[in-house]
Formats: sequence, structure tokens, C-alpha cells
Amino acid sequence: MFINPIQLCKVFSRLLLILSCGFIISIIVGLLYNEDISAFVISFAITFITGSLLYQFKEKSENFRSKEIRSSYFTVTTSWLLMSLAGSLPYLISGSIPGFTNAFFESASGFTTTGSSILSDIEALPKSILFWRSLTHWIGGIGIIVLVIIIMPSLKTGGYHLFTLESSFHEKIKPKIKSVARRIFYIYLLLTLAQTVLLMAGDMNLYESLCHSFGTVATGGFSPKNDSLAGYSPYIQYVVMIFMILAGTNFIIHYYILKREFTKVRQNDEFWFYLFVIGLIGLIVSSALYFSMNKNMEQSFREGFFQVISIITCTGFATTDYLQWPVFAWVTIFFSMFLGGCTGSTAGGIKMVRHLVLLKNVKRMFLQETSPHGVFAVKINNKKLTDEFNSKILAFITTYLMIFAFGSLLLIFIGIGPQTATSAVATCMAGIGPGIGSVGPAGNFAHLPDMAKTLLSLLMIMGRLEIYTVLILFSGKFWRV
Amino acid sequence: MFINPIQLCKVFSRLLLILSCGFIISIIVGLLYNEDISAFVISFAITFITGSLLYQFKEKSENFRSKEIRSSYFTVTTSWLLMSLAGSLPYLISGSIPGFTNAFFESASGFTTTGSSILSDIEALPKSILFWRSLTHWIGGIGIIVLVIIIMPSLKTGGYHLFTLESSFHEKIKPKIKSVARRIFYIYLLLTLAQTVLLMAGDMNLYESLCHSFGTVATGGFSPKNDSLAGYSPYIQYVVMIFMILAGTNFIIHYYILKREFTKVRQNDEFWFYLFVIGLIGLIVSSALYFSMNKNMEQSFREGFFQVISIITCTGFATTDYLQWPVFAWVTIFFSMFLGGCTGSTAGGIKMVRHLVLLKNVKRMFLQETSPHGVFAVKINNKKLTDEFNSKILAFITTYLMIFAFGSLLLIFIGIGPQTATSAVATCMAGIGPGIGSVGPAGNFAHLPDMAKTLLSLLMIMGRLEIYTVLILFSGKFWRV
Repeated sequence: MFINPIQLCKVFSRLLLILSCGFIISIIVGLLYNEDISAFVISFAITFITGSLLYQFKEKSENFRSKEIRSSYFTVTTSWLLMSLAGSLPYLISGSIPGFTNAFFESASGFTTTGSSILSDIEALPKSILFWRSLTHWIGGIGIIVLVIIIMPSLKTGGYHLFTLESSFHEKIKPKIKSVARRIFYIYLLLTLAQTVLLMAGDMNLYESLCHSFGTVATGGFSPKNDSLAGYSPYIQYVVMIFMILAGTNFIIHYYILKREFTKVRQNDEFWFYLFVIGLIGLIVSSALYFSMNKNMEQSFREGFFQVISIITCTGFATTDYLQWPVFAWVTIFFSMFLGGCTGSTAGGIKMVRHLVLLKNVKRMFLQETSPHGVFAVKINNKKLTDEFNSKILAFITTYLMIFAFGSLLLIFIGIGPQTATSAVATCMAGIGPGIGSVGPAGNFAHLPDMAKTLLSLLMIMGRLEIYTVLILFSGKFWRV
Repeated sequence: MFINPIQLCKVFSRLLLILSCGFIISIIVGLLYNEDISAFVISFAITFITGSLLYQFKEKSENFRSKEIRSSYFTVTTSWLLMSLAGSLPYLISGSIPGFTNAFFESASGFTTTGSSILSDIEALPKSILFWRSLTHWIGGIGIIVLVIIIMPSLKTGGYHLFTLESSFHEKIKPKIKSVARRIFYIYLLLTLAQTVLLMAGDMNLYESLCHSFGTVATGGFSPKNDSLAGYSPYIQYVVMIFMILAGTNFIIHYYILKREFTKVRQNDEFWFYLFVIGLIGLIVSSALYFSMNKNMEQSFREGFFQVISIITCTGFATTDYLQWPVFAWVTIFFSMFLGGCTGSTAGGIKMVRHLVLLKNVKRMFLQETSPHGVFAVKINNKKLTDEFNSKILAFITTYLMIFAFGSLLLIFIGIGPQTATSAVATCMAGIGPGIGSVGPAGNFAHLPDMAKTLLSLLMIMGRLEIYTVLILFSGKFWRV
């Protein structure tokens, strides 16, 4: 068997022990608010005991980078499934989210930093449960960064090849990979703390500040409030906007900034393209709001940009129900669901660098049409892209759009309206949160049939893991020894 | 100036003279039905005189393949504009289609073999006008085949590169290019006549048989009947289905069949993929109709396959209003609008070969993920695709989808509902005909504002000419001497 059971045990035990720590923090929150903590105690016991037992198996300390790449794919996919399953324990045991499908959906939505919810009255839930819900974002967020920046490039294959754009970076850091991982974790922690402090400075209490910071830095989108961030002051909303942009930025950029290597930041095409796209679409949407709705300039700017940033960084917080906007504005929001943030960030979706490669190919085509004998290369970060790379981007986006189309058709087939179906698939695949129609910012996913929720949960995990990590498990060749 | 005026005059004079021939045929039809033919006489006079005058300028007999490729782009784009303008003369002069925007839309829809119409009561128009309307399809259809098979490959650039897949073919035929053009014209004529005869055998009169054959062989979709082909017998509908499939096939395939070179037919991946896709989607839609609507097996099969073939070949005939189908079925129809027929046929859209290249890239990605050290090539027609080629497909599809998104947003911006707007852009760009919502098979384009109609007319021409031929005229570099 090509699957490495030692590797699997090692990873699973670590994950379960990390989750058990999360349960302890939730227990503390529950105690502070005088809530029933029995569900968390049981969840803690289950994950801690299973984790410790699995820990015993990992005698031979093998590196995660197994010789068999297939084993890593299997481990990564099952890891997210395991987290989502274990994370649903408190919801189920406390009965705060009834039914396995709902609990699994909410938990998967947390760990994939999606933020789609089946809850209609969020504030009715115990504070400890809502804290855990936000914490799943935070754990999932750092998980994906470590996966994409540290683990995936070492697999040296497809889905993550994007990051190998930064191959010089990766070669440079390879010997000190653990120290980089630690630094990136510190950056993640620092961003969370900085945002918490800034939110508290705006009169948000510690509990809500922490929950919202978890949701922002992980570009998740769960809020402990029914109306998300709509009820807070403009100051709070601007703080969240800035941190969403930071969270949707490649964490390697933060690392460079910390190391004062500004040349590397200047050279990062994806980062500037990301800012440009946010600026452009934000301006279009804000102008549409200003000219067609009875809102003043500041409000149009704030609401428009907040929603555009929230969608492009795949966070999903809301300060307003964009379905009340003019059609033009919310259709722009829908199309923006296919953009995505930067690679190496907590944002999901197709990602900016892939779009940039597409546009550079279009530009090359134009150049070649007018000067058919010229030779033009596609460059990213001042480096020539290999044609193999182009082909992989092509394959990724095709697969992404095919899964989007098939997923939508499947949902429509089981009876969901086309707007709700297509937007639910788009928002879940990209890890955003709200969609259009009945799953819009003012709605939720509760009313969908169980089959739809299960499919969407799997699409969240598939989207989060850059499609191929999951899809490959369904190919016959994968299981051939 | 890089634009070759001699080339322009030569092409324009030919086009105008061809159109004047078309007007004469329409005059004959009008005389047979005792209709007022004055509009056609005036149209004939205008085109014949202008055409003859321009003919005087083309003293130096230069080849169409000018040294300046840009000149060819300009000529091709303005040719379709000229045809659409001149073709709208009888509509305007006779007053049968009031207003320039409407007449231009109907004419552009004809010459681009789209088949979208602004007419609500088709049968109220004189027979000669409807004959001319169908004839514009036929002229546009042979025009595009000659353009794509004969002229574009000699430009040796982007948009038509797809056809250079058949480079061996092209090298082979280059010395005898005129004889191939003639044979292909004969094939086109033969298909039209064969279908006319078969339709007449099913008790359709000569006039209607001719009109429908023009619309089928050109994959256009204009019918002289209000309810398109819904009122005809199943036999007629099956005949049209078969000829739509033949018209959506690369005409080089017909040429090979005629020359009994069956190996070439067997090796043509696009052709088999095209048949496979029609079979697959046809089966899915037919099954959906059979199981969810009160229709017997034959009827479900016929209605489902007819509509799928009509959409995939970009014809646009209807035997039923698919908006009355279950949502799942018409959403499948909508997604199918992005498929398109074979290259080198009269069908529009993205085209099968491009989708095939996408899928082969996905397959390569899978192979590489499971065996990262293997080297896998993408092959079409048993030939390895160059990576540059991949990049061009990427650029084409990106541009196509971007124009689709921007076009849709623009229509939504001027107040058209999202379903109508997106489907109108999709159907016009691909040259299909009916859309979803108010522009569905039972509706028409009359109620759209003039601005929308003008935009859609230009999108039809842009889509018909493989995007880049038109788009390149908007690039600054193009106009730099």
C-alpha cells in the first residue's frame, strides 16, 4: 500500500491535539460566561485521547515529505475531513446545531475559512460555541498557509506549482524551513493581535474583537453577530477592511516586509495586481452605489469597498445586504467571486496570479497578432513563465469552471433555483461565505436539502485544497499500486 | 498608411456584387408571389452601382494576402460591417423592419449566421423579405467557411491558428487553393440542395424548404415561420437535426469524405469529440425531459436532441420552448451555449477543438500529479501541440469569457435583467439565436433598448470573426504606422 500509515498517524495525532487545545480555550470562554461546558469537555476528551493514542504509533519519526507523493495527497485531504468531523463535535454534543449534516457543514465552513453558515439566529447560541466557531477559521487559516507555503512546494507538482514561481525564495528558505514556518506563524499571530487591539480601541469588547479578528485574518467570515459587521461604527469597518486586505496578501510578502526586503515586494506582480483589481472594482461598485442609491459619498465608498474587499479576499463579512443594491452592482459582486486573493494567503478562489497569467497571455496574443514574427514571453515577477506552467494554469481554471458548472447543475437538478445554486457553488468553492438569492448576506444555507449541504461541504474542502489534491483521489490511476 | 486601398476596393466590390445577385434572386421570389419588389430594386441599384464603381479601382490585381497583415484584419472586419449595412437596405426601404438599429441587428444577425431576431410576427412580412433574410445566412455561412479555411490560415497568426492544426492539409492544398475553395463551395451547395429535396419529400413547399435549408447549412436559425420548426412533422425535424450536425462539422471533413480519405476523418479528434458531446448532452437533456415531463420516449428524444444540436451547432432553430422545460434542462442548454461546433464549419462559439485542448491539458495535469517525473504531451489529431498553441487557446478563451462578462455587465447596467442580459450576450457572441428569459425561443430581441441592440450586433460580428480580428482594431499598437 502506498499510503504511509506512520505519516497519517503523525499528522492526525497532531491535528487532534491542536483541536483539543482549541476546546480547552473554548472551555475557558464558557467558564467566563457561566455557560454549560460539558459539550467541550466531552469533545476535548475524545480528541485528546484519540490524538494521544495515535501519537503512540508514530514511533519512527519520518518526515512529512514521504517518498510517495500520493500519500501526501491522501493525508492532506483526509486531514481537512478529520478536522471538519472533529470540529463538529461540540455543535452536535451541545445540540446547538442539530443534525450531523448541519454540524459538518458549519465545521467544514469554519476550517476551510469559507464562512457560509446554516445558522439563522446566531446570537441565540452560547458564546463558547460561537467562539469555537470563529476559532475553527483561525486554525484552518494558519493550516492552509503552512500547507501552501511550506508543504505543497516540496511536493513539486501541479496544484501548488503556482507558488514555485517563488522558487528562488523556496530554495533559499529550504534549509531553514522550520524557522520560516515559525516566523509566518508569528506574523499570523501578530496580525490577529493587532486587529484585536484596534477593534477594542473602537469600543468592541474583547470577545467580539477576538472572534472578528479570527474571522478576518483567516479570511473566514463567521461573525458572532446576526448582522455581521453592519451594526458597528465606520471606524471598526475600516479596520476590518484593512486587515482583510492584509490577510488576502501572500504571507511571504509580510515576511519580506518584516525582513525589510522591499525590492522583493516591489517585484511581486501578483500583490500589485491584487491591489489594482480591488481598487478598480471597488471604484466601479462604489460609484454605482453613489449614483443610483440615496447614499452619501463616504457611505457609498465604505459599503462598496467593504463588500468588494470581503468578496475578493474570500472573507464574506457583510456591512450591508448587497442584494438590495442595483442589479449591476450585485452581478459585479457575483462575477468577483471568481477572482480570489493572493497565493500563499488565507484567501481562496482561483487566485490573482492565475488571472494575471491569463491577462499576460492575452497581451502576448495581441502583440503577436500585430507583429507575427516577434517572439514574446509571459513574465511574472520578472521571470519568464515556462509553457508547461501556462498549461497548468489552463488546466486548473478549466477544472475549476467545470466543477462549478457540474456542481451548479447538480444542485439545480435536486430542485434549487438557478441563482441560489450557481452562487452557492461559487461562494463555497472559493471559500467566501454568502452568495446570491436565498443564500445571500441576509439569508443562510439552512433551508437547502441535506444532499446539497453535503455536496457544498465537499466543494468547500475541494476548493480550499486547490482542487487537485482532492480530485486526484478520484482518479483510477491514483489507487493503482 | 498600412491599409491597402486596392485590397479594400477589391473585396468590397466583390461583396456588393454578390449581394446585388442576392437581391435579384429576392426580386424573382417577390415576382412569383406578386409582392412589391421596389425595395429590392432600389437595393440592387445601390449595391450594383457602388460595387461596379469600386471595381474600377481594383486595376492592379493584387493578392488578398497583402504583405501587411493588419490590412487584412481591417478588411475582414469592415467586410462584415459592410454586408450588414447593405443587407439592411431592403428592410429599411420596404419599411418591413422600422428603424436603422432594428434593421442592422436583423441583417448582422443574418450575415453572422446568428439567427437572433427582433421580429415578433415573422409571418406578417412579405415572402421576398423573409427569403432575403434567410439568404443572408447562406451568404454569411459560405463567407465564414472561405474565410476560416482559405484566408485565415494564410495570415499565419492567432485567432485562426486553430485551423493550422491541419497544417499538413494546408501545405498540401496551398498550390491548389482555388480548386479547394471551389470544391468546398460545391459541398456547401450540395448540402443545401440535398436538404431542400429531403424537406420537400416531407411535404414542405419549395420556398420554405429553401429558407430552412439556408438557415440550417449556415447554422443560422432564421425561419419564415413564427414558431420556427415546431409546426412541422417529426420527419422534417429529424432531417433538420441531421443537417445541423453536418453543417457544424468541419467542411474539410466533408472534403475528405468526398475524396474517400477516411483515415483523415478517423484521425480528426475534434469531429469525434463533437459527436460525443452532442450524444452525451443530448442524452442527459432527453432523459430529464422523459422523466420529468409527460412526454413519450420518442418525443423526449426528438425534442431534447433537436434543441441540444441546435444550440451546440449554434443554429438556433426551435421545436419547443425550452424555457418550459425543468430548470435543470434549460440551465444545461445555457451552459451549452459556450461549446460551439467544429472549426472550419459554419458554427460559431468557442468551438470543440478548444474545449478538447482544455480537457487534454486537464488530463495531462492528472498524469503529472500521479507521476511527477513523467513527461506528457498534449496531442490533437496525433500531433503534439506546441506550448505556444496552448497559450493561444488560453488567451482566446480568456478574452471570450471576459467579453462575455463585460458585455453582460454593460447590458445589466442599462437596465436589462441579469438572465436576459447574460444569455443575450452568450447567444449573440456564439451566433446561436435564442437566449433565456425574455429573449428565449418564444420571445425576441425587439424590446431591448437601441443601445443594447447595437452592442449585441457588434458582439455578433466580433464573435463570428473569432474575436481577435475585430478586437485588434481597438489596440493602440494596431494603428501605429
